[in-house]
Amino acid sequence: MTDTLDTLPTPCLILDRAILRRNIGRVTARLKPAGVQLRPHLKTAKSVDVGRMATAAFDGRITVSTLAEARYFAAGGFGDILYGVGIVPSKLPAVAALRRQGVNLRVVTDNMPVAQAIAAAGRSGDSFSVFVEIDSGAGRAGLPFPDLPGLIDVARTLHDAPNVELAGVMTHAGHSYHENTPQGIARVAEQERLAVVTAAQRLRDAGLPCPIVSAGSTPTAMHARRFDGITEMRPGVFVFNDLDQAGIGSCGAGDIALSVMASVIGHYPHRNQLLVDAGALALSKDISAQEFMPKAGFGFIRDAPVKDLAVVACSQEHGFVQADAPLPYDKLPIGSRVRIWPNHACITAAAYDRYHVVDSEESDGRTVVATYDRINGW
Amino acid sequence: MTDTLDTLPTPCLILDRAILRRNIGRVTARLKPAGVQLRPHLKTAKSVDVGRMATAAFDGRITVSTLAEARYFAAGGFGDILYGVGIVPSKLPAVAALRRQGVNLRVVTDNMPVAQAIAAAGRSGDSFSVFVEIDSGAGRAGLPFPDLPGLIDVARTLHDAPNVELAGVMTHAGHSYHENTPQGIARVAEQERLAVVTAAQRLRDAGLPCPIVSAGSTPTAMHARRFDGITEMRPGVFVFNDLDQAGIGSCGAGDIALSVMASVIGHYPHRNQLLVDAGALALSKDISAQEFMPKAGFGFIRDAPVKDLAVVACSQEHGFVQADAPLPYDKLPIGSRVRIWPNHACITAAAYDRYHVVDSEESDGRTVVATYDRINGW
Repeated sequence: MTDTLDTLPTPCLILDRAILRRNIGRVTARLKPAGVQLRPHLKTAKSVDVGRMATAAFDGRITVSTLAEARYFAAGGFGDILYGVGIVPSKLPAVAALRRQGVNLRVVTDNMPVAQAIAAAGRSGDSFSVFVEIDSGAGRAGLPFPDLPGLIDVARTLHDAPNVELAGVMTHAGHSYHENTPQGIARVAEQERLAVVTAAQRLRDAGLPCPIVSAGSTPTAMHARRFDGITEMRPGVFVFNDLDQAGIGSCGAGDIALSVMASVIGHYPHRNQLLVDAGALALSKDISAQEFMPKAGFGFIRDAPVKDLAVVACSQEHGFVQADAPLPYDKLPIGSRVRIWPNHACITAAAYDRYHVVDSEESDGRTVVATYDRINGW
Repeated sequence: MTDTLDTLPTPCLILDRAILRRNIGRVTARLKPAGVQLRPHLKTAKSVDVGRMATAAFDGRITVSTLAEARYFAAGGFGDILYGVGIVPSKLPAVAALRRQGVNLRVVTDNMPVAQAIAAAGRSGDSFSVFVEIDSGAGRAGLPFPDLPGLIDVARTLHDAPNVELAGVMTHAGHSYHENTPQGIARVAEQERLAVVTAAQRLRDAGLPCPIVSAGSTPTAMHARRFDGITEMRPGVFVFNDLDQAGIGSCGAGDIALSVMASVIGHYPHRNQLLVDAGALALSKDISAQEFMPKAGFGFIRDAPVKDLAVVACSQEHGFVQADAPLPYDKLPIGSRVRIWPNHACITAAAYDRYHVVDSEESDGRTVVATYDRINGW
């Protein structure tokens, strides 16, 4: 029997393939004419099916955030994989093992101890491809721009080692998530571009190679005014979008492809609330969207019969749903189903092992037309 | 080769069995002499191994929060399982299927539409055992005490239906998590007790059975001054404890059995931070402990070389570690490992499919002596 939104067990994760296709198309249309490759960050989708769709118009390179993802996507046929979280020496044997299988799994560092460990492993016969990470203003990992302290030393240590390829430089302007105007995001995008293009130029000025100049986040991919000098972009959440991206203006509410379907399990008119069977695990406790959408709570209810109906609190398996206006309980009877837009799709999706795929263009948007698996864990 | 804390891939979940044993022993010592059964809420551990240890001194009854847990623990030999989240009609066939296999899977409701649906399913030949849920002050699910509106109607609808057993009443004083003194928690525990014992009495006064009177949370199990009239308690997080429980005084810091092990992946002295490879997914974005421990961030580092070293921010796979004092980078070199106490063990553990078990009494506390699996999802 084919499942539909009426028969799937709740809570579960629903992916609208029509919106997914449009979201991928929108980023493709921005990068392709600029001659920029898309290396999608598949930490969001963690799905081979989504990865294939996202890379269909490009050369197939991808980004991952865990070794488990690297193994999974390698098994799924992806051959150029950037593991985008700073590598540590204890993980080099696992990287080398995948590379020996013919997968170009590339790693990232921003410091000399790791560069030296990679160089030593290279001398022992393992091969590596390494990006130097640049901090373009997010204040997370990377050599901080504009000083870029140690850039040449780290890069030269890698480049001079046998079996080690200096792949280039990479950055992620995570601070773009805290802007909510196209102008503000474009300004961050230009910082991101300038940081990584400058770093590339410094390497070349020092006689070092820098074939790949890698940047990107969903907001900067959507709002950057120029990509000059950048060879690839690494947005991730754009495939699904979420309330956080809608809040900052990377997408509209109609562009959110992912939702958590839940059942109404109880009515509490004495406090103008109802409960659903999606709580902290089914939605995550990420509240990113509240920065620019204070009423988003742990997620707005899609197609709600009352304004700003949201999950306002969570315990492990209970979501507390509320609105400013009196709840129309007759329209949300016990046992009925609601779909909740995630605050932050990457974190919400991580609780699930699969997507139940519907399609609001090629199908009725309610029948499950496919199931995509996911790779969780590490 | 036997793994140790030095060889496990990071991030990973470490469980100290010695602390686990002590935590179970402490709750057992409170309930056993009072003649109260322990029905541990295994939503925290989601592990058959932990479930067996927790119930060893009792009759084996347990609580779960998902149907996936119900199936998993049933397969693990548990025969009396309370599914503690308000049931909806669409889940009754799955419940009935497990019950036909001989598992006494009991369900919970607080409303007439569901009571009527259960009664109808009972008339169709399926059997059920049902608790009526009482809200003892947490403001989550349940008929609110002291009015208990509809209690007798719901209970009678269930009791009068063929094949339906009215198992009793249950409540969870979740508001005990927002008290941080033994006196405050004891006061909530007495509310919890009074609400459920009163509800039981009203059922009996109406000529209805109420064999089980079920209450409990970890704080109230630890600090209740009397259990009179209660037949079972359902604490959950007590098996592991966490910073939240330490903050409210359910346990001491030495009683936290669970930690996330992470690797230091970068040093950022220009902002007095370092990064670890445990972020929003490895730790969860739960910040419960901050209510009474403002510096807990997303988790304190255990055995830290500087006071209040904590994960202060998270992105998906990056944890930002900081302290008030200058970081002693020489004591936390890149590639070294730290163990992070979780804010809320139930939510943190849900990102992992297994526990790497060490034992700080029977072994060295660093060698993996066992691996316990977990059941995630729904």
